[in-house]
Amino acid sequence: MDFQIKQATEILSQTPATIESLLGNLSDEWIFASNDENSWSSFDVIGHFIHGEETDWIPRAGIILAQSENLMFEPFDRFAQLEKSDNKTLSELLETFADLRQKNIETLKSWNLTEEQLNLKGIHPELGEVTLEQLLATWVVHDLTHIRQIVTILAKQYAENVGAWSAYLSILQ
Amino acid sequence: MDFQIKQATEILSQTPATIESLLGNLSDEWIFASNDENSWSSFDVIGHFIHGEETDWIPRAGIILAQSENLMFEPFDRFAQLEKSDNKTLSELLETFADLRQKNIETLKSWNLTEEQLNLKGIHPELGEVTLEQLLATWVVHDLTHIRQIVTILAKQYAENVGAWSAYLSILQ
Repeated sequence: MDFQIKQATEILSQTPATIESLLGNLSDEWIFASNDENSWSSFDVIGHFIHGEETDWIPRAGIILAQSENLMFEPFDRFAQLEKSDNKTLSELLETFADLRQKNIETLKSWNLTEEQLNLKGIHPELGEVTLEQLLATWVVHDLTHIRQIVTILAKQYAENVGAWSAYLSILQ
Repeated sequence: MDFQIKQATEILSQTPATIESLLGNLSDEWIFASNDENSWSSFDVIGHFIHGEETDWIPRAGIILAQSENLMFEPFDRFAQLEKSDNKTLSELLETFADLRQKNIETLKSWNLTEEQLNLKGIHPELGEVTLEQLLATWVVHDLTHIRQIVTILAKQYAENVGAWSAYLSILQ
């Protein structure tokens, strides 16, 4: 599929409402469930989304667009949210994520990016040279990855409850 | 996690809205995308959800609860929706699914199932003896499986667009 800002934005726009729909009315037992003590709960994933809005996607796009001397991105702390989400409720986190995402999409749209700008490059601290288009496509896939993570965590809570059907349910493997 | 009707119903209740949020505002290029010509699009998945509401979960629960002479379920046709969704729009399918699901949840609640009833058994044509509780838990996991399938199909459309980030995105593998 060719990358188009309009289509990418369709996915980016739906994510906060999808997460809200998926988790907004669930018991705490679902929200705070994780597959083991070292892995994230659905609650933790929302914190990760928030941290990405604050420090990853749009700030990195800004670095690429500026084309200043230093094209290197700040490393992304994938565990930063675990502390920052302390003492927050699920609905506070969902609201913060939705607000930040909306502002970031407005910023993205306001740039009216050209094909030439989408080909501009930045430097990822581990992956090396990447383009703005690749960054934006990754933002989209990252959203979908973490929706997938949430539904997988939820499903696994019933791994023992489905009995023989387990054989048909690859999400449980 | 112990199986509880209330918690299972929380997940079953959110699915139509989650699918609507995920797909309702996407271009046809996303909706009809599939990973190859033999695999389902997101559009096809909604038809599969509808067919399950009509012929699988509640009808099978009814067979178990009736405890009549024939405890064997009808085999479930996993491809039935491909014809039935012809000439339907996405929003028609989403509405049909939401209506059927709501009615089925009302039926489920109206049964006020006891622990004893949850332990009643039916016979799956391939898997053999299964309990009502296992059927209901599988309904929940089946929902999550197909949300997962949809986000995976969507993500894979950008497999070539993310460049070096592909290494970090297990959803693309």
